Amino acid sequence: MAKGLFLTFEGCDGCGKTTVLHHVSKLLAEKGIPFLLTREPGGSHIAEQIRNIILDRKNVAMDPRCEALLYAASRRQHLVEIVLPALEKGMLVLSDRYLDSSLAYQGHAREIGMEEVYSINLFAIDGRLPDLTFFLDLSPEEGLLRIRQSADREINRLDLEKENFHKKVYEGYKILLEKYPDRIIRIDARQSIEEESRQIVDIILQRIKD
Amino acid sequence: MAKGLFLTFEGCDGCGKTTVLHHVSKLLAEKGIPFLLTREPGGSHIAEQIRNIILDRKNVAMDPRCEALLYAASRRQHLVEIVLPALEKGMLVLSDRYLDSSLAYQGHAREIGMEEVYSINLFAIDGRLPDLTFFLDLSPEEGLLRIRQSADREINRLDLEKENFHKKVYEGYKILLEKYPDRIIRIDARQSIEEESRQIVDIILQRIKD
Repeated sequence: MAKGLFLTFEGCDGCGKTTVLHHVSKLLAEKGIPFLLTREPGGSHIAEQIRNIILDRKNVAMDPRCEALLYAASRRQHLVEIVLPALEKGMLVLSDRYLDSSLAYQGHAREIGMEEVYSINLFAIDGRLPDLTFFLDLSPEEGLLRIRQSADREINRLDLEKENFHKKVYEGYKILLEKYPDRIIRIDARQSIEEESRQIVDIILQRIKD
Repeated sequence: MAKGLFLTFEGCDGCGKTTVLHHVSKLLAEKGIPFLLTREPGGSHIAEQIRNIILDRKNVAMDPRCEALLYAASRRQHLVEIVLPALEKGMLVLSDRYLDSSLAYQGHAREIGMEEVYSINLFAIDGRLPDLTFFLDLSPEEGLLRIRQSADREINRLDLEKENFHKKVYEGYKILLEKYPDRIIRIDARQSIEEESRQIVDIILQRIKD
């Protein structure tokens, strides 16, 4: 097992993950703590190619199981090329999304079944679960409102899903929160970005000390 | 379960699958038997996009588990878009490669493990195993010789693998043959194309009668 600390960030679309991660990065940098900030499938050329197929709006015929396998493939490549090398150097790695996204989106919302999607993801990550996962808790209604109000954000295939889909994603995350209470920490995403980020950084600092 | 008959064709590179399938098709057409001839990922636009990533010679950094997941994703999409609709109409479907290729190539030759690769493929095919599989048995040495002698065949990333890889693929197929004696039928691929094709068509006709 790698020596570093692997933290993942999860939540519904519009929950503010990207903004919070930006702020958390700033706080960590100010404290002189080195870290790698990444997002699936960021930084891996092969993983990006896979992601392009998933998000292409022309690919409306995509089967849910095909989609789940593509996410798992992309995850694997990102893990091997970007995350593991950093963890092996003992680094702190922050990832915007990881396997819980697939469990909530494909497993629960697309109704493939969380257990089935978990099994192909275990194949993909080969046992490398996150050390800690932050779930930024914001209701799908509030999340979609934020997306619609943000004009500079490009709309992709998944954003076009019906509101009911996003409700089921949220439901999926709630199930995961109950199932993995030791690994997943709920963060109230209705707080200010500053408050939210401070809370997360405090937990990270505590974990580094342990 | 779909009503049609689903037959798959397997073997090492250079075993002559494509030529034999062409000949088998001719014989079936002469007998007035309707069929769908397909090959993974043939005919599905999404599956082709996935295949392009797998076979791109620039993607040397591809992790074996990522490759296995991509094959499974491509297989799923091809199954759903091309194979299942034909089977539901009661058709005879002949497919050039299916899950056994992944078990032999990724599971055994790439050493991920056949059981593990089988599990993600079961997710992909959702229980839809072939009714019958023809394994065209030709040693990897003879197969590679045939490939080198055939000038009009484009060389892809997998063809460039070392000879040892192809030996392990062959070994993998032999293991599958022992493991699934009811589903997989061995066909001697050193025979003439005519003899081989006749033998296969006889088995198909017998199966249709049953």
